[in-house]
Amino acid sequence: MAVQVSKTGTGKSYIGYDDKGYLWCEELKVVDVLKNVGTSPFFLYSKAQLESNFQAYVEATKGMDAIIGYAIKANNNLNLLRILANRGSGAVLVSGGELLLAEKAGFDLQKTVLNGNGKTMEEISLAVTKGCLINVDSEFDLEHIIQASRQVGRKARVLIRINPDIDPQVHPYVSTGLANSKFGIRNTHLEWFLNRIKQESSFLDLVGVHCHLGSTIKQVKIFKDAATIMLEFVSIIRNAGFHHLQFLNIGGGLGIDYERQGDVIPTPEELVASIRDKVKEAKLTLIIEPGRSIAGNTGVLISRVIGVKSNGNKEFIVIDGSMSEVIRPSLYDAFHWIGLIAPSSGELSKFDVVGPICESADFLGKDRMLPRPEEGSGIVVMDAGAYCYAMASNYNMRPKPAEILVDGKQWKCIRRRETFEDMLMLYDQK
Amino acid sequence: MAVQVSKTGTGKSYIGYDDKGYLWCEELKVVDVLKNVGTSPFFLYSKAQLESNFQAYVEATKGMDAIIGYAIKANNNLNLLRILANRGSGAVLVSGGELLLAEKAGFDLQKTVLNGNGKTMEEISLAVTKGCLINVDSEFDLEHIIQASRQVGRKARVLIRINPDIDPQVHPYVSTGLANSKFGIRNTHLEWFLNRIKQESSFLDLVGVHCHLGSTIKQVKIFKDAATIMLEFVSIIRNAGFHHLQFLNIGGGLGIDYERQGDVIPTPEELVASIRDKVKEAKLTLIIEPGRSIAGNTGVLISRVIGVKSNGNKEFIVIDGSMSEVIRPSLYDAFHWIGLIAPSSGELSKFDVVGPICESADFLGKDRMLPRPEEGSGIVVMDAGAYCYAMASNYNMRPKPAEILVDGKQWKCIRRRETFEDMLMLYDQK
Ligand SMILES: Cc1ncc(COP(=O)(O)O)c(C=O)c1O
Ligand SMILES: Cc1ncc(COP(=O)(O)O)c(C=O)c1O
Repeated sequence: MAVQVSKTGTGKSYIGYDDKGYLWCEELKVVDVLKNVGTSPFFLYSKAQLESNFQAYVEATKGMDAIIGYAIKANNNLNLLRILANRGSGAVLVSGGELLLAEKAGFDLQKTVLNGNGKTMEEISLAVTKGCLINVDSEFDLEHIIQASRQVGRKARVLIRINPDIDPQVHPYVSTGLANSKFGIRNTHLEWFLNRIKQESSFLDLVGVHCHLGSTIKQVKIFKDAATIMLEFVSIIRNAGFHHLQFLNIGGGLGIDYERQGDVIPTPEELVASIRDKVKEAKLTLIIEPGRSIAGNTGVLISRVIGVKSNGNKEFIVIDGSMSEVIRPSLYDAFHWIGLIAPSSGELSKFDVVGPICESADFLGKDRMLPRPEEGSGIVVMDAGAYCYAMASNYNMRPKPAEILVDGKQWKCIRRRETFEDMLMLYDQK
Repeated sequence: MAVQVSKTGTGKSYIGYDDKGYLWCEELKVVDVLKNVGTSPFFLYSKAQLESNFQAYVEATKGMDAIIGYAIKANNNLNLLRILANRGSGAVLVSGGELLLAEKAGFDLQKTVLNGNGKTMEEISLAVTKGCLINVDSEFDLEHIIQASRQVGRKARVLIRINPDIDPQVHPYVSTGLANSKFGIRNTHLEWFLNRIKQESSFLDLVGVHCHLGSTIKQVKIFKDAATIMLEFVSIIRNAGFHHLQFLNIGGGLGIDYERQGDVIPTPEELVASIRDKVKEAKLTLIIEPGRSIAGNTGVLISRVIGVKSNGNKEFIVIDGSMSEVIRPSLYDAFHWIGLIAPSSGELSKFDVVGPICESADFLGKDRMLPRPEEGSGIVVMDAGAYCYAMASNYNMRPKPAEILVDGKQWKCIRRRETFEDMLMLYDQK
């Protein structure tokens, strides 16, 4: 049975419904996977989707010097990282843990960028040692990088993180490039940074500029405007004597079609096309840091219905998945499309889809028109590949769920479900 | 050096400042603990505070039949649970994992209540087997309890969770007792529930009623009004033939003084006094389920300053603690008092206190007047004993922090910090 291909922001869709109303992940019916996996909830990923999303960036940057730096924070499953590393992806790292993980996954560390407003000395030293690119976020961060490279005895390759102050028009929690953000340098202090870097030129190699506007961005124009501003900074910096400045890192942030209402989301092709000529003209290597647009629609959360209840005014589908696996709805007011994984003759009604956690923040979706499901039937929360497992908690002593990867007709567990004993591990004094 | 004792909602304070501006936890200066622990951030708890908070409930309920059922979800550290179990505390459980943990900690399971809108069959069966009280949340939940007790071959001791529909005047995410909540039965269906329970009287023993209005409640009147309504339900149920109905469970929810502006928070004494006579008159055993008011002010998060930066408009203290340890500010817009742990001559200024996580949701406090701290100095986030570690994540591959318990002049690690290797544990296929 072929998977119905529906247009999304980054191209083909490998997780979708057939005409009968069954959800498929590549060549597997998800109801069958659920039966075979046994326990729920779990995350289910499509390998082909991951590869195709990455490939869209590869094709978009063809003919340019470019690094596609997958933002590991979005989804750090080691086995998914290996797939991307194998295909030549770079990586954006935001902690020492992510750096070690990237190394383990086989990324070329020369093609990684360590980013963050609060890097510790240990993290910076590790990055200098391994030859990662490092974003300079502030005055104190620059001083720490200088100290670290002194200690390590190796030049740090740095980019300056600048706030282009363009409103990405997204939730304030995922907006990061405005002037009042906690990230990036004060642009009016640029000269100070350049002077300081010159003073310490035996420890620092200024190789580029970086910006990241925010996440879930739906308009190419925002990237284009940012690139224009960033190119002005590139000129200023080159004219200040850094003639070999090589990298323009425009960050991540491309949105995906969470609503699945056919919203027009720019493709990587469109994003890159809007800035390609300028970047080539300036003889720059483009770095792009997609997280969500690579991992988001590669994964879904599969849960089972525990029961359906009404309080008189409102009806609830109670599932075994929860905010401990997918916190985006309660934290960001985020929308995830939710459906049954098999056809149902249940009468259509409006439901809140909620988890079993003892608090009202534990909802996955509100006011969803859905067929009344049978107990035990499967429910999918779509587009749960990014910023879901990565933010999962053990709230209410819930074990972290399994992660399952589908490749064609095969599925395998790529991270096992946590056990009760696992949750007690940190009481063993090592 | 004696700890300055400041009045809080539940009595004495064992974590506080001396005249010189040093933070103490019992008889230890927190700067010394930080130096000795080494890594940061970590949670720091006071044993005396925990015991004193519990004791306040014991004293409040003296002369009554009562179970103090600590809500484990607030803080499930096994070593803290053992302290409470030793003192005779009961427990409120919201998952099978919490049930197993309560057993391990030594709680008398007869004095535990399993609560939840989405209990699985396995969880219910375990609770029936172990003799826990079980809250009936909905029609389907009741059917599941019947099935489970049939299978186990033992009567389930059940309470009906009712929504008194009183507005607790708190954040919607922690408001749980309104008619449109996902919790509790539809009150207009009470008769159906009573009939169904009678039909299945060989499997069910209806022993009480339960309500839980919400969390962070600051007015005794709200509990009193709820008790009045619940007592009406008790009469109705007793008159329907359940003469031996024994328990009135009025839930948890008492707030604490997060703002530390001397807000008048009712004490357990005041809370219980407002309902004592009515409960005794009705010959009921009171169950009370405090979480936050027992654990909240027993713990703090200790972090180090990584650096201070300005973006021109705003100044930021960047610390090594983050939303991955304390998500309450970003999830609930919650306020935690923040301070330096040692006197400082730094000039006072307004800061956002933020973590190193790469997103704007990662803040601990906004617009706080604080002395400009030195790099490496200690920062305390107060009242982080409840709903902090319990909701912690590994976002950005951050290890879960250590938990340290102070007892007089001694400190010890009661849960070690996670390592990078620990975070890879779930890739071992068991
Ligand atoms: C610096 C940086 N780059 C890239 C990303 C990835 O963003 P997205 O997942 O929206 O593509 C983030 C995420 O916040 C980020 O902070
Ligand atoms: C049923 C029940 N009881 C008790 C509590 C504990 O509440 P608190 O920590 O506010 O006392 C909760 C928390 O939400 C709960 O859901």
